[in-house]
Amino acid sequence: MEKPSIPQGTRDFGPAQVARRQHIFGVIRRTFEQFGYAPIETPTLENLSVLTGKYGDEGDQLLFKVLNSGNFLVKERRGEITPLVTADDLAQGPRAVLPKIAEKGLRYDLTVPFARYVAMNRATLTFPFKRYQMQPVWRADRPQRGRYREFWQCDADVVGTDSLLCEAEIVLMMAQVLNGLGLVDFTIKINHRGVLRNIYQALGGEGKETDLFVAIDKLDKIGRDGVTKELLEKGFSDAAIDTLFELLTVSGGYARKLQRLLAGFVTAGVEPDGQRPGPDEPTDEADDSEDAYYRGLNELAAVRDLLQASGFTQFNRLEFDPTLARGLSYYTGCIFEVKINNVAMGSVSGGGRYDNLTGAFGLPDVSGVGFSFGVDRLYDCLEELDLFPAGTGTLTRVLLAQFDAASLAAGLPLLAQLRAAGVPAELYPDAAKLKKQFQYADQKGIPYLLLAGPDERAAGQVKLRDMRAGQEQLLSVAEAVAVLSQAQ
Amino acid sequence: MEKPSIPQGTRDFGPAQVARRQHIFGVIRRTFEQFGYAPIETPTLENLSVLTGKYGDEGDQLLFKVLNSGNFLVKERRGEITPLVTADDLAQGPRAVLPKIAEKGLRYDLTVPFARYVAMNRATLTFPFKRYQMQPVWRADRPQRGRYREFWQCDADVVGTDSLLCEAEIVLMMAQVLNGLGLVDFTIKINHRGVLRNIYQALGGEGKETDLFVAIDKLDKIGRDGVTKELLEKGFSDAAIDTLFELLTVSGGYARKLQRLLAGFVTAGVEPDGQRPGPDEPTDEADDSEDAYYRGLNELAAVRDLLQASGFTQFNRLEFDPTLARGLSYYTGCIFEVKINNVAMGSVSGGGRYDNLTGAFGLPDVSGVGFSFGVDRLYDCLEELDLFPAGTGTLTRVLLAQFDAASLAAGLPLLAQLRAAGVPAELYPDAAKLKKQFQYADQKGIPYLLLAGPDERAAGQVKLRDMRAGQEQLLSVAEAVAVLSQAQ
Repeated sequence: MEKPSIPQGTRDFGPAQVARRQHIFGVIRRTFEQFGYAPIETPTLENLSVLTGKYGDEGDQLLFKVLNSGNFLVKERRGEITPLVTADDLAQGPRAVLPKIAEKGLRYDLTVPFARYVAMNRATLTFPFKRYQMQPVWRADRPQRGRYREFWQCDADVVGTDSLLCEAEIVLMMAQVLNGLGLVDFTIKINHRGVLRNIYQALGGEGKETDLFVAIDKLDKIGRDGVTKELLEKGFSDAAIDTLFELLTVSGGYARKLQRLLAGFVTAGVEPDGQRPGPDEPTDEADDSEDAYYRGLNELAAVRDLLQASGFTQFNRLEFDPTLARGLSYYTGCIFEVKINNVAMGSVSGGGRYDNLTGAFGLPDVSGVGFSFGVDRLYDCLEELDLFPAGTGTLTRVLLAQFDAASLAAGLPLLAQLRAAGVPAELYPDAAKLKKQFQYADQKGIPYLLLAGPDERAAGQVKLRDMRAGQEQLLSVAEAVAVLSQAQ
Repeated sequence: MEKPSIPQGTRDFGPAQVARRQHIFGVIRRTFEQFGYAPIETPTLENLSVLTGKYGDEGDQLLFKVLNSGNFLVKERRGEITPLVTADDLAQGPRAVLPKIAEKGLRYDLTVPFARYVAMNRATLTFPFKRYQMQPVWRADRPQRGRYREFWQCDADVVGTDSLLCEAEIVLMMAQVLNGLGLVDFTIKINHRGVLRNIYQALGGEGKETDLFVAIDKLDKIGRDGVTKELLEKGFSDAAIDTLFELLTVSGGYARKLQRLLAGFVTAGVEPDGQRPGPDEPTDEADDSEDAYYRGLNELAAVRDLLQASGFTQFNRLEFDPTLARGLSYYTGCIFEVKINNVAMGSVSGGGRYDNLTGAFGLPDVSGVGFSFGVDRLYDCLEELDLFPAGTGTLTRVLLAQFDAASLAAGLPLLAQLRAAGVPAELYPDAAKLKKQFQYADQKGIPYLLLAGPDERAAGQVKLRDMRAGQEQLLSVAEAVAVLSQAQ
């Protein structure tokens, strides 16, 4: 017989792991709900027509595709059977065969299904629509540490408003979840696609905006030299690259960086993004950044003001990082990314604003902003930092021992009474040696053992053993129920 | 542009539906946990070697299979590429092609993955092992009312004990969940594979046991005439069929039916299953059924006694039904099925004891018993009977209106204060017309609207509107927070 196994990159979760995961989901859920987000769920299977082309070529490769059911090799119509896949198709390879045998795939993220949901339900939804979603996604990636083929995302998005309050609340939610989990040493990085575009303009480049963003996105991994090399290959000049790093490496706090980039954009002659309201007067640019109307800088300043007005105090954990680019091309406004400091782990959360997420599904010009937590990465961080509450995952508070017919007869009504009082309780199912029942309670982490032997029964009492303290006390049934109800 | 859609037999769940589903999951989860069951989760993807052959030929057909990732048509080894699928395979059909292009499938139920889990983790689990599992499963069935291709099961099983206490507790859990959901008019049917085997023996048939069970299983659907016809075709005699219906249609309550079947088996000369303990004395069979030792009847009597000792009172909802067969052949002891009366819906729960569930995975002779709730059927019953608590799924208690910069500035700290007090709250993200914000609160079912206009701010007050009652009151901020915290 073959030994049973599970597919590469997937996991079983035992009781202790489920309890730890529920702890994470619980903190995230309560935060999302406190901010007015309501849950939706979408199917595991989506039509490939919905998924394909939304995640780039690499994403299309990593989609898990599901074989059409029944005889997937033929088409049957009014009793007439036509082959679907030909030897020619086989020779042409998977691209020719795939569309004929698979029309469904597994959910790859929660954003595209959400966009599809909004487009399909536009008539009945109330906008602005705030939803959260906590479900697994699947990617046929090469499994490695912190990367699984089945993993869980928790997303919150709001569509139908371009209010920057939403951006500010994303920062508040990120901080609340991380503080709630005890992951207090975090950095929330924020940037704006407009800032990146202005930087591109400051370089005087043409037609190579994506190349620039792609290169900046790798700065963390390949460093300044690597980025320089890549940009030179893409045709950027030495002078442009110098300007780039001058802008990317501005120093100071959030406000100071905004000021310095503003000065840099003005110096480089970058055309402002917005029109000035009122008379067109020259102003002291060092004094008032609002006059320049570079959208990215202005929105980043506004988000900071909203956070301040909301009583946010952890500005030491919020970093304006002009090098943050995030790969996904659909972002158009603020972008976010969260790192847990002193843990070797990629970002545990990220997101941003998009102006046209639902356009692919026939609903254009719906602005939205959202973000996502990676539950499995949070789990690994909490484990590495030993931040999980203790526990084996067992919820049973008390085990009633069974050693003979009389103990069973005495135990059954007591068991019912305990459960009715809301105390999760078990009666050992067999009349076994007490040692075995002790071991059972011990290994499962059940905190109390309850015995009703002949002496106790004669006295109308039970013996309650505190498994951790190793202490026993004789109590009336009512007393025992009271102790166990309070002990929770 | 193609209109986006979701695959046949799958569903999106909006906020109201998620809330209703969570209500069901919550009642089931609390019950399972009160009875000492701990949660596990298994992957969505299982190896086809684990799934195939476990659900019969029809089940194998209904498994969703997942295409191998990458170029699924070739095998690459040390740079050498060999075609996997040949034109010959195509000609032979899907059975020849499938094993070469798909090695994974979607979870079809929760029982086989559980058995696989127990076999894989036997060394570290504490037995008896009690687990529950609440996850979706997928079947490529033809969708129809109450039957989906993605649907949810909630299973509880215990393995490693043959104690009938587990059977009794299944009845207790079934009743507790249904009562908890308000589905009070239910019938829990119970039978025993041993009873069916004894009936088969009473008929004197040979080698046609499965034919008999399959036919009995259809009694509900095809009636006595249909079953008679089927059995005649399978070679059963008229006399045997008469005996069958005599036994199947014994009347009376639970205990009376046990007695009458016992008498029937004795009359028909069925060999008892067990040995008598003590001296072999003739007894009055109407007096004491325990002497005959037909395992099925005895265990059913014992389950009833355990229920009585546990204080179970709903014996009018528990029916011993000798015609209950349940298709799955792995059951070996008690079997269960639950119907909601006066609702046109198949069974909402079922289960039974199996003596060798993990045998297929190299762990023989592990006795277990378990049962399953079909969440989607419970949902449909609750909907049909209008038993869901009211609600739109929104958890937000209060919407803070925004009409100008000052209302935003006043609203932000108040918003933070409300959330810190545990009140889910939203500030309308844009400065919009009040009418629009009213509509937003109304459509989402947010119970309170909070306004802080110039007059209120000047007086250090806020206006709190009860959306359902249509009443407004002027309160201090502290009073408003107190009202909203209590209103939950």
